Amino acid sequence: MRCYPICKLPGRVMGIRLLHFSSVVILVLLLVAGALTALLPNIKDDKMPNLRREPKSQSQSALDSFTLIMQTYNRTDLLLKLLNHYQAIPHLHKVIVVWNNVGEKIPEETWNSLGPHPVPVVFKVQTVNRMRNRLQIFPELETKAVLMMDDDTLISAHDLAFAFSVWQQFPDQIVGFVPRKHISTPSGIYSYGSFELQTPGFGNGDQYSMILIGAAFFHSGYLEHFQKELEAVHALIDETQNCDDIAMNFLVAKHIGKSSGVFVKPVDIRNLEKETNSGYSGMWHRAEHLLQRSYCLNKLVNIYDGMPLKYSNIMVSQFGFPNYANHKNKM
Amino acid sequence: MRCYPICKLPGRVMGIRLLHFSSVVILVLLLVAGALTALLPNIKDDKMPNLRREPKSQSQSALDSFTLIMQTYNRTDLLLKLLNHYQAIPHLHKVIVVWNNVGEKIPEETWNSLGPHPVPVVFKVQTVNRMRNRLQIFPELETKAVLMMDDDTLISAHDLAFAFSVWQQFPDQIVGFVPRKHISTPSGIYSYGSFELQTPGFGNGDQYSMILIGAAFFHSGYLEHFQKELEAVHALIDETQNCDDIAMNFLVAKHIGKSSGVFVKPVDIRNLEKETNSGYSGMWHRAEHLLQRSYCLNKLVNIYDGMPLKYSNIMVSQFGFPNYANHKNKM
Repeated sequence: MRCYPICKLPGRVMGIRLLHFSSVVILVLLLVAGALTALLPNIKDDKMPNLRREPKSQSQSALDSFTLIMQTYNRTDLLLKLLNHYQAIPHLHKVIVVWNNVGEKIPEETWNSLGPHPVPVVFKVQTVNRMRNRLQIFPELETKAVLMMDDDTLISAHDLAFAFSVWQQFPDQIVGFVPRKHISTPSGIYSYGSFELQTPGFGNGDQYSMILIGAAFFHSGYLEHFQKELEAVHALIDETQNCDDIAMNFLVAKHIGKSSGVFVKPVDIRNLEKETNSGYSGMWHRAEHLLQRSYCLNKLVNIYDGMPLKYSNIMVSQFGFPNYANHKNKM
Repeated sequence: MRCYPICKLPGRVMGIRLLHFSSVVILVLLLVAGALTALLPNIKDDKMPNLRREPKSQSQSALDSFTLIMQTYNRTDLLLKLLNHYQAIPHLHKVIVVWNNVGEKIPEETWNSLGPHPVPVVFKVQTVNRMRNRLQIFPELETKAVLMMDDDTLISAHDLAFAFSVWQQFPDQIVGFVPRKHISTPSGIYSYGSFELQTPGFGNGDQYSMILIGAAFFHSGYLEHFQKELEAVHALIDETQNCDDIAMNFLVAKHIGKSSGVFVKPVDIRNLEKETNSGYSGMWHRAEHLLQRSYCLNKLVNIYDGMPLKYSNIMVSQFGFPNYANHKNKM
């Protein structure tokens, strides 16, 4: 039997040494078990949410997510209502609130006290109440895609998720939910309108030549383009406190040489302006609003030395949603 | 008075010479007037159409027009009905009828006796009744765009004009009216179906991964691609007398690395097969038709060593047609 040198020890001494050895082994095993237990993930108690959970949207790739930019003036109640909705939209990276309530405190305390929130929300305090504040280049903007929303517009998550996927296929265009058009008249003067305005007359149906940016996705690069626009464009927007969206469509159409936008037909879009307590009802109710927009068209044509807007009649919807077979035919 | 040499002549002689001169002038004027009258365009008499009017579609650019390729078997009555409709579609360059009625005379005499026709129609006599006959490279095909139609399908001119304009924006894809999809199962075996088949499960709504070529526009270059396909693909189509459209979608998807097709929702599409006198009801009524198509999917995946089909949920409609405001919202 090979047990040298242990075997040479007397039986009693060997017994005690064996006991010591076993104790050491057991202790080591307990320590190892303890270490392993410490490495196991914590079992979350449903009743006690982890307040320190790291917001997972931070890890979303800048290519697969978008930033919501929402400018707000005198409708903080609507803003907070909308933030509760929009903060949970899939693929949202961050929200940037452009705070046009000059001199008024941002609701950051309220916001934080009602946390945690799925995504970070940044309040950008403005020193002047300007329409084009929302078209600045914000350092907090990290994604290629921007979702720009007016502070009184509610669009369903389904619509936004679908429209974002469409934007990803047409990243150089403004992909959104509100189409408008220009028409030319025999005098060469342009006029602005929606579907009630006569069609450009290309055949059947209607055409659109702009997608309004108050409910649309577009590439963040266009914000840089916009900042480099001629001073005359900025002055026009400041003069009218209007038309920043028309200017953006001119910019994009000129840049890509085709229709500036792609219209996605929304399933569920709502205007909440009647629900505000502030009584403030939005710029588009001003008597001169539409006339201003026709005015802007013609001014921009002067500045651009031509009409770059192009017509499109493509209307995009989501296949099989919301109706199980919204494409069914008698065939 | 300066009138030498005329003034030197006696009065009577001068009178006669003046008369001669005037006559000559009048004669010349009459001749000129006559010549001008001959150059005036003929006033067309509405009751007597000019039988020798040159078909104006011949001058249509190969880029702005398309060729209709329609394969036909045992439904000549439907064929002729459809030809009357399709011959007048805007932007149509020519019609190629793939005559699968082997041994039967083409209706060329009937066709000519009922002329003139807006576009040329060519009957291509086939020696074997094969499904993939329609995917040959016909020398008469001059346009970049092909419209392929089954011989029992009637689609409105509005739909076709719109879909053609959509194809021009997506020329590398199959732009058509009939979407289908594949789904994968836990076993790795694929199955084929329409909207009743479970969705691929990407979120809301449905997806499609194929556009059937029996009612679609695609680039004529894909016919050349198809001819160069592996013999196994041709053999599969010949074996099943089916699946040429699935094979085309595999080809296109592999080639462009994205969804093979774009679905255009038709406003007015009709299947006329019940109206035929022949009693022939089409391949898709065979009991094994759908199972064959699942079979083809899996065979093609073997041949392609992978599944190249990609899903899409983009559904395209024409803005403002047929309803004046088919995009109107509560907003």
